[in-house]
Amino acid sequence: MQLDTIIKGGTIVTATDRFEADIGIEGGRIAVLARNLEDAPEIIDAAGLLVMPGGIDSHVHLDQPGSPGIVMADNFETGTRSAAIGGNTTVLPFCLQAKGQTLREAITEYERKAEGNCYVDVAFHLIISDPTPQVLGQELPALIEEGYTSIKIFMTYDDLVLRDREILEVLDVARRHGALVMVHAEGYDTIRFLTDQLEREGKTAPFFHGPSRPVAVEREATHRAISLAEIVGTDIMVVHVSNRQAMEEIRRAQQRGLAIYGETCPQYLVLTEKDMDRTGMEGSKYVCSPPPRDTDSQLACWEGLQQGVFEVFSSDHCPYRYEDEAGKTNTKGKTSFRYVPNGIPGIATRMPILFSEGVGRGRISLNRFVALTSTNHAKRYGLYPRKGTIAVGSDADLVLWDDKKKVTITHKLLQDGCDYTPYEGIEVTGWPVRTIMKGRTVMEDGVVQKRKSGKQLKRTLPRTKVF
Amino acid sequence: MQLDTIIKGGTIVTATDRFEADIGIEGGRIAVLARNLEDAPEIIDAAGLLVMPGGIDSHVHLDQPGSPGIVMADNFETGTRSAAIGGNTTVLPFCLQAKGQTLREAITEYERKAEGNCYVDVAFHLIISDPTPQVLGQELPALIEEGYTSIKIFMTYDDLVLRDREILEVLDVARRHGALVMVHAEGYDTIRFLTDQLEREGKTAPFFHGPSRPVAVEREATHRAISLAEIVGTDIMVVHVSNRQAMEEIRRAQQRGLAIYGETCPQYLVLTEKDMDRTGMEGSKYVCSPPPRDTDSQLACWEGLQQGVFEVFSSDHCPYRYEDEAGKTNTKGKTSFRYVPNGIPGIATRMPILFSEGVGRGRISLNRFVALTSTNHAKRYGLYPRKGTIAVGSDADLVLWDDKKKVTITHKLLQDGCDYTPYEGIEVTGWPVRTIMKGRTVMEDGVVQKRKSGKQLKRTLPRTKVF
Amino acid sequence: MQLDTIIKGGTIVTATDRFEADIGIEGGRIAVLARNLEDAPEIIDAAGLLVMPGGIDSHVHLDQPGSPGIVMADNFETGTRSAAIGGNTTVLPFCLQAKGQTLREAITEYERKAEGNCYVDVAFHLIISDPTPQVLGQELPALIEEGYTSIKIFMTYDDLVLRDREILEVLDVARRHGALVMVHAEGYDTIRFLTDQLEREGKTAPFFHGPSRPVAVEREATHRAISLAEIVGTDIMVVHVSNRQAMEEIRRAQQRGLAIYGETCPQYLVLTEKDMDRTGMEGSKYVCSPPPRDTDSQLACWEGLQQGVFEVFSSDHCPYRYEDEAGKTNTKGKTSFRYVPNGIPGIATRMPILFSEGVGRGRISLNRFVALTSTNHAKRYGLYPRKGTIAVGSDADLVLWDDKKKVTITHKLLQDGCDYTPYEGIEVTGWPVRTIMKGRTVMEDGVVQKRKSGKQLKRTLPRTKVF
Amino acid sequence: MQLDTIIKGGTIVTATDRFEADIGIEGGRIAVLARNLEDAPEIIDAAGLLVMPGGIDSHVHLDQPGSPGIVMADNFETGTRSAAIGGNTTVLPFCLQAKGQTLREAITEYERKAEGNCYVDVAFHLIISDPTPQVLGQELPALIEEGYTSIKIFMTYDDLVLRDREILEVLDVARRHGALVMVHAEGYDTIRFLTDQLEREGKTAPFFHGPSRPVAVEREATHRAISLAEIVGTDIMVVHVSNRQAMEEIRRAQQRGLAIYGETCPQYLVLTEKDMDRTGMEGSKYVCSPPPRDTDSQLACWEGLQQGVFEVFSSDHCPYRYEDEAGKTNTKGKTSFRYVPNGIPGIATRMPILFSEGVGRGRISLNRFVALTSTNHAKRYGLYPRKGTIAVGSDADLVLWDDKKKVTITHKLLQDGCDYTPYEGIEVTGWPVRTIMKGRTVMEDGVVQKRKSGKQLKRTLPRTKVF
Repeated sequence: MQLDTIIKGGTIVTATDRFEADIGIEGGRIAVLARNLEDAPEIIDAAGLLVMPGGIDSHVHLDQPGSPGIVMADNFETGTRSAAIGGNTTVLPFCLQAKGQTLREAITEYERKAEGNCYVDVAFHLIISDPTPQVLGQELPALIEEGYTSIKIFMTYDDLVLRDREILEVLDVARRHGALVMVHAEGYDTIRFLTDQLEREGKTAPFFHGPSRPVAVEREATHRAISLAEIVGTDIMVVHVSNRQAMEEIRRAQQRGLAIYGETCPQYLVLTEKDMDRTGMEGSKYVCSPPPRDTDSQLACWEGLQQGVFEVFSSDHCPYRYEDEAGKTNTKGKTSFRYVPNGIPGIATRMPILFSEGVGRGRISLNRFVALTSTNHAKRYGLYPRKGTIAVGSDADLVLWDDKKKVTITHKLLQDGCDYTPYEGIEVTGWPVRTIMKGRTVMEDGVVQKRKSGKQLKRTLPRTKVF
Repeated sequence: MQLDTIIKGGTIVTATDRFEADIGIEGGRIAVLARNLEDAPEIIDAAGLLVMPGGIDSHVHLDQPGSPGIVMADNFETGTRSAAIGGNTTVLPFCLQAKGQTLREAITEYERKAEGNCYVDVAFHLIISDPTPQVLGQELPALIEEGYTSIKIFMTYDDLVLRDREILEVLDVARRHGALVMVHAEGYDTIRFLTDQLEREGKTAPFFHGPSRPVAVEREATHRAISLAEIVGTDIMVVHVSNRQAMEEIRRAQQRGLAIYGETCPQYLVLTEKDMDRTGMEGSKYVCSPPPRDTDSQLACWEGLQQGVFEVFSSDHCPYRYEDEAGKTNTKGKTSFRYVPNGIPGIATRMPILFSEGVGRGRISLNRFVALTSTNHAKRYGLYPRKGTIAVGSDADLVLWDDKKKVTITHKLLQDGCDYTPYEGIEVTGWPVRTIMKGRTVMEDGVVQKRKSGKQLKRTLPRTKVF
Repeated sequence: MQLDTIIKGGTIVTATDRFEADIGIEGGRIAVLARNLEDAPEIIDAAGLLVMPGGIDSHVHLDQPGSPGIVMADNFETGTRSAAIGGNTTVLPFCLQAKGQTLREAITEYERKAEGNCYVDVAFHLIISDPTPQVLGQELPALIEEGYTSIKIFMTYDDLVLRDREILEVLDVARRHGALVMVHAEGYDTIRFLTDQLEREGKTAPFFHGPSRPVAVEREATHRAISLAEIVGTDIMVVHVSNRQAMEEIRRAQQRGLAIYGETCPQYLVLTEKDMDRTGMEGSKYVCSPPPRDTDSQLACWEGLQQGVFEVFSSDHCPYRYEDEAGKTNTKGKTSFRYVPNGIPGIATRMPILFSEGVGRGRISLNRFVALTSTNHAKRYGLYPRKGTIAVGSDADLVLWDDKKKVTITHKLLQDGCDYTPYEGIEVTGWPVRTIMKGRTVMEDGVVQKRKSGKQLKRTLPRTKVF
Repeated sequence: MQLDTIIKGGTIVTATDRFEADIGIEGGRIAVLARNLEDAPEIIDAAGLLVMPGGIDSHVHLDQPGSPGIVMADNFETGTRSAAIGGNTTVLPFCLQAKGQTLREAITEYERKAEGNCYVDVAFHLIISDPTPQVLGQELPALIEEGYTSIKIFMTYDDLVLRDREILEVLDVARRHGALVMVHAEGYDTIRFLTDQLEREGKTAPFFHGPSRPVAVEREATHRAISLAEIVGTDIMVVHVSNRQAMEEIRRAQQRGLAIYGETCPQYLVLTEKDMDRTGMEGSKYVCSPPPRDTDSQLACWEGLQQGVFEVFSSDHCPYRYEDEAGKTNTKGKTSFRYVPNGIPGIATRMPILFSEGVGRGRISLNRFVALTSTNHAKRYGLYPRKGTIAVGSDADLVLWDDKKKVTITHKLLQDGCDYTPYEGIEVTGWPVRTIMKGRTVMEDGVVQKRKSGKQLKRTLPRTKVF
């Protein structure tokens, strides 16, 4: 065994363990765990640091087209660069099928965008917006076979919304071929109804984004998605859950024995609707869907993380520039919240926020932190055991974490393509000081290496009974 | 005070009381309650009998058009005749707006059908199938003002289903004008999806009507209807609830403080899915929607009645002949359950079944029987205090009930226009021996009087906080 | 029919109805309900007033001995006088068995205290503090037979607490003989433990009465009482429920189909723990058990009343004078809350507070008000149909209520034996202007008639399935 | 690094991971994890086997005195021998304080019994039966400091039951010093009441052990224990939960955010009350407390294991011989179930049953199996990271598991001191083929090595937020 690299003297943390050992890396994989390893060309000193599996962010949007004239602020280069800043070694962006497009065309397009531009590994979820018989009967089964084993569907948004019958058809294909469906659960009709009503009343400021999609809208869609999955007999992941009522719907389903999984995100832990009430267009910096709610909703999301209702914690990174006609402050957006692009950046801040607010404040254990930010993503989305843990044979994807380092979050630290962070000014304790992917350092002390060695990953089927 | 009629020697039962007294009637109304009344042209001996408010059945279908070629078995004459047999003095049928029709046209049509043909009083709910701006903005507000204070909408059926946006618009009009919306809560898309699937698998017998609309379909639609009502801020009545899960959705809403009301029906207390599994087309006699479920669902419906989740008990009388090409055994119905008309008769059997199975078996009190079959209907649908109780000033609508009389239900007793009863052979204890409407005997010992003196009632707005 | 008295022109309200009619009274009973009654020696003008069944307060303490030196502020004369002021026509006080005493001795003692001293009718519950084999095997069965059909037991208080085994034995006797057991549900050991702890920490002010018996203490005892009743297979009434968690325990039991009933009181609707935090000994005016909680607890008690978890609303009148060494400000009470007698007056204020806060603010209907303050008490405790309603044959026990009269509650209005009211200064709309018992006016416009015609009532067994 | 032993070619499974690697052992501890390790005096071939952390059974009774004349069937030698047969490397028996005894005396006695007689490591929980001020104020704090960091208390059994006040005092000491209290939750008074009742009715066969302690008895005590812990503000472990209602009480507490933990045992997964109904005294072989329930209870216990309500799975090994006057068939036991000793053996069968019924039938994952049988015990009871996982630095406590081996459980395989197993005849797939403790083989293919090298372990305080 000729090691390439040794990570020395750190405290290794996995989703269940915490122990002192060195890590020997060979060919990009973890070859040995032992104390007092020596003799390698590269020896990285991890003394005093936590050594954890590199973060996996399974919910990020990169280089997706928005409405006409609206441009997403991150391409694969800037997005994955910021991911590495935040301690991530794998991200799962979306490949969005435009109406009329085949899935294959969409994949070709997104892979072209990604190819050679990624600092960390990537794997695509498929967004189905046009479930034609061809898509459902031919393309999707073939692509699942090829490793595109997760599909996202939307219950809202003009260009993306699927009707219940379409949702059922997609779920049925997923069931037959073993893929996992991720659901954006907000009800289209109700949002349109409320938006029209608010506009008629002259309530058009960014703040009214919240009232246009209240908790009941999300709860209803969550219940509906769960019911459709139950009827078809397949699993789903309800993404970006924002509040107690939607969380409780998922919990009730889990207690009935259904395989319904849940995800929440940093914006639902530290932001509230009040952020959207800032003066002028400032509130638009916090416009995302579902919208941030109130402090009890934050508490509920914490409970979901603590009590196992949510098994993954993602960023839902979806960046639009603020000071930019193509982003949050576009001309139409100023006339109504309806036209403010829905989404906020967060790929770099996900792990520090959960670490500081969660581990630091005693809300979750260090092991649970690893599970929520890495291991569970890998298991749920077919990347485990290659990704998501520190074990012999796994990719040497690691983050070295200084659990005492205090950082005040500010946009320039994050190196994304956006021009602001909604978390500006938040102080955190604990910060990623080195990101190592397949044995190579990608980021050290905030400096990202030039080489973009991220590859696209082929995934296996999600495993059932993984937890 | 010159009384026309005295009901003498009975035990009066209301939704709260039970006492011995005579009832003096003058001009069709209750004029006096006292013991030992004498001196009236007509003295009716009620000794040994219970004297209760005449039944109000707030969910009946009469003379409605079905699919092409399908004919409903009861017109207003036969339907109200059977109602009187079963101890009812008021029924609330539906006025169904056909697509393209104005509400006013529909009302004119139904009132013409009813005029002069009714043995008991009637009042129409409006079924909205085509919520055009004209209907929502002009007609409906005007008709609510005129006393059409309840509206029914459907979440399923090809010709009736409203999409969520339409439901929201109807609810919003109801909220602004104070009407009550009744909801048939089953999800259209899911039923179509499952029906297609079952047919592909050759599962076309009447029995598969049940699997085409499982409990989760009803629960989902119930949750959705409640959510839409919650978002708009108005009350709804979820009709014909068939199972525990839907019942629990209503209960949860009530416990959150929402004004969500529930109804169940005899078919959910005494029939099960097994009835639809009888040989040949026999199962079609039990095809209604939602379908009868299982014994735990029956138990849940009893709990809903006992614990106040349901406040009204109706028949959902919707009769189709069995031996008749225009009914259950139509040609297409034999090719698939999809074409078997959904609905069963029950207007005459509603009260005896609840009395025997409920009061007789100690599941509900006699007072609760009165509330569930009469008083609560009157209060909820704007007919109280004229209807629904025994009090000075109320219409003298009464049923004299022999609580010891044993009857084996058989179709010929019921005098409806159908050719079977799904309750054939069920033995009950307790039976209506005389039905008195506005002081006049309509039915005595199974003989209905010739005179059809039922009138259409103008209703007030439903009262909130009535219970 | 020769009427003695006619109540003319009022609006009659029962637990289900509301109608205009006169009431004709003969021999102390309701003889006739009709409009335009005339011809009686006494005609009482009720125009513009509500005419409701006289209040029944099924939870009052009169002339009970306290700890040595502590004297209850009301005897039967002052207590029933104040009851009449508050619109009540029947009260159910307790007959407390002292340790070592036979039940018969206790009854003889209390009946002697009551005899000839009551302005309204009375019926005694038995408090069992010493369940000897003689008491359980002989006395109790005989007394139930004689009409003492309800028994109260305590799970706390040094001189009253029963251990679980004793509770089980009492419940078992009640089950076999059909009596109803009322339970004071707070856990003795925990209260003693916390009291000792608080005293060690110098926390002895009246305010610490609350922290010595937190919500979990009441919830635990409630759950325990329900479990013991479930195991024995009998009904219980959980009295004076103060908070959401205890309410939810009762609700859960009811939903499991158990016959568990609940009661709450005015102090849990309008007082909070902050009232016990007033300066000096002022807080002692609000010391009762369970203690008033917080605003969410108030909301929960309202929900319990609205949603049927609680079926009776009582005062738990238990008066101790404030400025009096024998009452709240006794010497030992000043050294620790432990010695402040537990209990507050409220017999006259119960109905006005519920009317104003409940009916007046749209929280409950007028019918539910009647049920909660009168009808349900009569039914549950074996006094119906003689008491608790307005029906032919019932006692003419009535309260004439001016629903527009505004009153600021102040102690001198109440005419009890206490020297304060915890509800001082509360403004209410709606007030009893005349109390009529068995056809005779007991109170008119705050003036109580001299004649004390209240009698002791013999009760039947509680009826099951009464609601 | 000079390895003593290498475990070669197995599949390593931890509470989160599963990977192929060899394990290098040095000085009894895990020194290295890597592939292709060579060069050690002892090389153990694990090809085709699962290598998991050795089982930790945190609930076993060894060599405890019973009622006079009743003798426990296992001493430390036979008990730990059978533990090794079943794949365990650590057991946590109880040190029972007799009334009047000091804790120190008890510990001295039990350590003497254990010393030199153990095949696997042991650590004692303290049973407090006599919480004198001396015990609570002096001994217990000192012993917690010494590493006796868990305490068990009983809510039933004549010689062990603590009253609520005593429970509160013990919980309070635990809270102040950081120990964990395990609670046997069944209500003493109710069991005595029901036992007396059953005996009066002549229901004395072993079967009536079940009816003497129905589900409500366990649920009530569980709720009470949780409430007392909540009031004191400390954690508890509710042991041997047998049914849905008790499980739900724990879940509700967890959802309120309380640190309440749960345990269940094999008898609640595979036995039912029917087993106690076998002819003659055969039923006594299944008499344990709480008693096995019904199939829905089994399902509930599975749900508790799957959904995280229960975090440890123990045997509650408590062996009494069947054919033996000193055991199940003692003379008095034949007169009434009351005298049949409560407890059944199971130390060797715990892991195979859970593996076969849980992992084998797809109810739990392999990782969850490890967590439930080993890791969580170590973490919860202060043995982690020394015990409970496979990580560098941990004790080399391992079980080699043949997941395909089919075994029919029969008593002679188990090598305990009892004369039967309640699991006789159950077929399992998956069996421990080698048990390795601190690097040394203790058991291989059913043969236990002679050397008894088990030691007593000093424990740290239970860690909070460990999961």
